[in-house]
Amino acid sequence: MNKPTLYTCLSPALLHLYDVKETIVVVIDILRATSTIATALYNGAKEIIPVDSVEKCIQMGSEMECITAGERDGQIAPGLQYGNSSFDYPESFIKGKTLVLTTTNGTKLLHMALAMGATEIITGSFLNFSAVCDHLKSLDKNVILCCAAWKDKPNIEDTLFAGAAAYGVKDHFTINCDATHIAQNLYQLAKDDMYKFMKQNDASHYHRLTNFGLEKDIRHCLTQDVANILPEYKDGRLVIHNELT
Amino acid sequence: MNKPTLYTCLSPALLHLYDVKETIVVVIDILRATSTIATALYNGAKEIIPVDSVEKCIQMGSEMECITAGERDGQIAPGLQYGNSSFDYPESFIKGKTLVLTTTNGTKLLHMALAMGATEIITGSFLNFSAVCDHLKSLDKNVILCCAAWKDKPNIEDTLFAGAAAYGVKDHFTINCDATHIAQNLYQLAKDDMYKFMKQNDASHYHRLTNFGLEKDIRHCLTQDVANILPEYKDGRLVIHNELT
Repeated sequence: MNKPTLYTCLSPALLHLYDVKETIVVVIDILRATSTIATALYNGAKEIIPVDSVEKCIQMGSEMECITAGERDGQIAPGLQYGNSSFDYPESFIKGKTLVLTTTNGTKLLHMALAMGATEIITGSFLNFSAVCDHLKSLDKNVILCCAAWKDKPNIEDTLFAGAAAYGVKDHFTINCDATHIAQNLYQLAKDDMYKFMKQNDASHYHRLTNFGLEKDIRHCLTQDVANILPEYKDGRLVIHNELT
Repeated sequence: MNKPTLYTCLSPALLHLYDVKETIVVVIDILRATSTIATALYNGAKEIIPVDSVEKCIQMGSEMECITAGERDGQIAPGLQYGNSSFDYPESFIKGKTLVLTTTNGTKLLHMALAMGATEIITGSFLNFSAVCDHLKSLDKNVILCCAAWKDKPNIEDTLFAGAAAYGVKDHFTINCDATHIAQNLYQLAKDDMYKFMKQNDASHYHRLTNFGLEKDIRHCLTQDVANILPEYKDGRLVIHNELT
């Protein structure tokens, strides 16, 4: 029996090269959109609405009862209430609430995957690693692991997650994709201490965030399965997948 | 003193993200355009004219005294005389001649880099590895290592060369580029036996070429410094850099 295919797309600017239709797209934005999404839903957020601009986020905040959040250049964007850190969304705060979140790279990719006709769009982070892998293994569908990257330039942390996920599900898929092999090799090199790997390689996003004193955030975003739910993007919002079925 | 910058671009479809002006662009198409270019010039070809279609190659062949060459799907394209293998261009055959060469990915990238205003465009392959590194180290200019990739999808062999070159010149440049770090790590993993690494990782181009019985070609394209000259793309043709100065 033919196994379904798995591809890794290292940047949204390359997504047009892949056949997105009839495919499960995993959106990966480790620092920090998809990590924050997993955390907020795990901690009981009712839903997360990703929007592509600070203005839209402010506007929605004025129209509905919700929390508005988003950062630009590592700081809470003017006019919004909260930032992009997982630590901003403990259960005591977020449970039952709607979060309207604007991020630069992750949101754009969610919208792209939707516009290109993906069958299902889920978000992946190390915090919900096993939920993503278990889900992909349970279906007989083609998969694209798509890195949100940084302003379309490939980055280490999203590539590491793609490599980890590909490694985790590889027996269930046909993998004829150099980007996946590159990601898998990178993950094998880094897996014993991904934080150290990023630091040693002076990953550009690591560099950006540590300039804002966010080492603790980065370490958290590299921790496996501490918010192990499966976010699905559907009807313009992110909710836990199981609740839809 | 500030060192110049070095970036790695993993696909022509990402080149617009980089500031190509005032920059040395190294075009990398290991299997096999830039390997063949190095070999033919090393063996005494007068010049190589890269063109983007078989039709244009045939047309130029009818208008001037030259050798026409190019492959499609691993076979000599109908209407052309020779293929893309380095072994097609020994000194006894190519010396003093003009080669009009059409390749899918490498030619496109040469034209792109020119259109985007690169200061200098050179081609890199393992066959002329040291010539490329020595040249980059001798200048005080920003560099972009640009992989020709395969139909815009990143591939292992071009990424390996970018990693090797970045590693070779790193002390002379400021490197704040995740793609470069990814490439360097990949090269460190593969360097002891790149052929074996490609085979183990079932690199898609390896797979394509071995289907045509070209293992010998692949091994040759991974051999260091056996055609150690520096091709420069100028006025629509590739010639040895030193001859221009």
